Amino acid sequence: MVHAVHDLRQHAPLVQCITNQVVPQITANALLAAGAAPAMVDTPEEAADFAAIASGLLVNTGSPTAAQYSAMGEAVRGATAAHTPWVLDPVACGGPAARTEFSRDIVTRHPAAVRGNASEVIALDGGVEGGGGRGVDSTDEVDTALQAARSLAKRTDGVIAVSGPRDLIVSTTRASWLTSGDPMMQRVIGTGCSLGALTAAYLGAARTGSGGLTDHDAVLAAHAHVGAAGTLAARDHDGHRRGPGSFAVAWLDALDTVAEDPSVIPGLVSVEETTEETAG
Amino acid sequence: MVHAVHDLRQHAPLVQCITNQVVPQITANALLAAGAAPAMVDTPEEAADFAAIASGLLVNTGSPTAAQYSAMGEAVRGATAAHTPWVLDPVACGGPAARTEFSRDIVTRHPAAVRGNASEVIALDGGVEGGGGRGVDSTDEVDTALQAARSLAKRTDGVIAVSGPRDLIVSTTRASWLTSGDPMMQRVIGTGCSLGALTAAYLGAARTGSGGLTDHDAVLAAHAHVGAAGTLAARDHDGHRRGPGSFAVAWLDALDTVAEDPSVIPGLVSVEETTEETAG
Amino acid sequence: MVHAVHDLRQHAPLVQCITNQVVPQITANALLAAGAAPAMVDTPEEAADFAAIASGLLVNTGSPTAAQYSAMGEAVRGATAAHTPWVLDPVACGGPAARTEFSRDIVTRHPAAVRGNASEVIALDGGVEGGGGRGVDSTDEVDTALQAARSLAKRTDGVIAVSGPRDLIVSTTRASWLTSGDPMMQRVIGTGCSLGALTAAYLGAARTGSGGLTDHDAVLAAHAHVGAAGTLAARDHDGHRRGPGSFAVAWLDALDTVAEDPSVIPGLVSVEETTEETAG
Repeated sequence: MVHAVHDLRQHAPLVQCITNQVVPQITANALLAAGAAPAMVDTPEEAADFAAIASGLLVNTGSPTAAQYSAMGEAVRGATAAHTPWVLDPVACGGPAARTEFSRDIVTRHPAAVRGNASEVIALDGGVEGGGGRGVDSTDEVDTALQAARSLAKRTDGVIAVSGPRDLIVSTTRASWLTSGDPMMQRVIGTGCSLGALTAAYLGAARTGSGGLTDHDAVLAAHAHVGAAGTLAARDHDGHRRGPGSFAVAWLDALDTVAEDPSVIPGLVSVEETTEETAG
Repeated sequence: MVHAVHDLRQHAPLVQCITNQVVPQITANALLAAGAAPAMVDTPEEAADFAAIASGLLVNTGSPTAAQYSAMGEAVRGATAAHTPWVLDPVACGGPAARTEFSRDIVTRHPAAVRGNASEVIALDGGVEGGGGRGVDSTDEVDTALQAARSLAKRTDGVIAVSGPRDLIVSTTRASWLTSGDPMMQRVIGTGCSLGALTAAYLGAARTGSGGLTDHDAVLAAHAHVGAAGTLAARDHDGHRRGPGSFAVAWLDALDTVAEDPSVIPGLVSVEETTEETAG
Repeated sequence: MVHAVHDLRQHAPLVQCITNQVVPQITANALLAAGAAPAMVDTPEEAADFAAIASGLLVNTGSPTAAQYSAMGEAVRGATAAHTPWVLDPVACGGPAARTEFSRDIVTRHPAAVRGNASEVIALDGGVEGGGGRGVDSTDEVDTALQAARSLAKRTDGVIAVSGPRDLIVSTTRASWLTSGDPMMQRVIGTGCSLGALTAAYLGAARTGSGGLTDHDAVLAAHAHVGAAGTLAARDHDGHRRGPGSFAVAWLDALDTVAEDPSVIPGLVSVEETTEETAG
């Protein structure tokens, strides 16, 4: 992970974000704080050309307008042609039918990574719908999404990340369980959406970096970075827990601090690794 | 009010917000800090279905696009069918003609509450237009909106809240004057729009709660919660007045603190009650 | 500059902002903190009428949708008819062809000021395109934009401001070099876009104020105000450098502090003036 943070800071990847209208400000600030560069280029007219020059692309389905859907399709087209890695954040997949259908369709176009909560990942794989009924909150535990994540990893040949108290990151040959972060992250809008953007940043940096990092390493590093910042931000200098407003500010500061001293991360997160059977 | 805060925290109402493009982030964060859950589902395609499962709905007319107007109409249709309480925030009613017309039309569909400033409420009731000329700032005093609020309360059978240095909350049988908050709230964008969302949250919680609270109680509690947080946030630990950036952060922290210790509210706000004559 | 800040606080100019979807919140908060009033009225239907009553108008091309382009045109039409000063922020001019074309077209309609980075100003004047390839980041040094700024100043009879470590402000008879601010401003999204809005605010205040300030004075004052706030915000009370999250909060506080004590500005910024030859 130290290599990954180093690559991120060195390359300052330009990350194109097509995201929902609630979170562009915190997403852009999170990318800047961590060491990347944001570009919210999300019109159908500009999306494909920009994806060709971006280092990474985030496709977040949280603003389900016709224009956004069209821009997402165009951006993926441009990213695919230029080998720009892209991340799918299937917001509320399993909720509204059109979103579920769109996410299931675009995931067939080989994202380098998927990042969602357990309900979204299960629905994305074709599981029972309705889990998105509480909007963006997951109604399922991370563990229950393991099979869906494995299935999606095989189908996409990408990395599938399931966010929760313990994050699960699955690729065809490897599964990692990451413990990090703080429950206060659920009380600040956009921390999860920002993680999707950071995942695209780390993928972009890893592919241009010299560290020989796999996509799995990059996705894991993004989650560790964001989670470590959450742990650092949870308490103030006197050890008191911060409220949600102060936490959001401190989390951005910590994204920067972590990037400046990558050795901080290993002490703040713990990772368990297992090898996946590459069955049939 | 203590019961109302307790109900809010216990039920964590899911609040659908159709709001303007300036304030979604602070609105979502205010709901999360106070103890509710936000969902900015605002497309015409998804708005009605979501309003049926939401606990409360905010309709804020600050983004007057054709798509938003259509989504507002759809959401109110879904909310009405499912008995989801909804709040109208008629931003700049009395200013641009199309906004005024839209607000006057949708208010006939029986919102559980209206929240606006004096100019907006007067214009919404059919009073002289032009008061919205300074955009979102009121050019009228709260007192001057009393008759308009009474008229709207009778027509809608709902609760009409007029925001100002002293808030006025009127229903057919009751009028409450609430003194709370801090002038710094006018220097942070979205505190008023967030109050509209919190009003929908309290209405949703009160209707599902066991406290037997009326809609009037719920609207009053929302204003007390937001105002008390404003008073708490105005000064730092050394008693110095905070600047607008620090205030916004502290206000979110205080929305959480107030929710954790509801007994704080009565000491921070004062309420005068009068009984309305139910004439006509 | 002291006169300019005084005028701003006295007149609290109403600034209409047509801006991109990433920065409306920080832009509105920056205007409020500095002493102005924001109004994000950006639909084609309302834009022209509102521009006639606003004190100043910002046209930021960062959201290149058909509706936004149309609203920009309408707003400039209304502003021109009512003699409302307007500011063009040609975001990513020199990047996507349609943006470049739109910016080059609308700049012929005589903005009171243009604010951009060196790459954008060079491209706006017709220079080599492609500089906007990193999105909103400039790939050129401020110095290299001097000729383009002079050319644009003559063509528009307006003030051309080029942002960078040292800002350049050019009108037909005068050039000012302003040293102010802090590199951390590049790590917070929207500080540059907010500067465009503040420029419109200062122009509006100067034209209604009694200080006899020129448009050049007003543009310079806006840059000094924003830059001084950046310098003030860079370090906390113990002299430690702030992280990007804390910096953004402190910057808003400092925009307010500077406005309260205008004498602070001269100590935080330095200005070099030269007289332009009015050739041709």
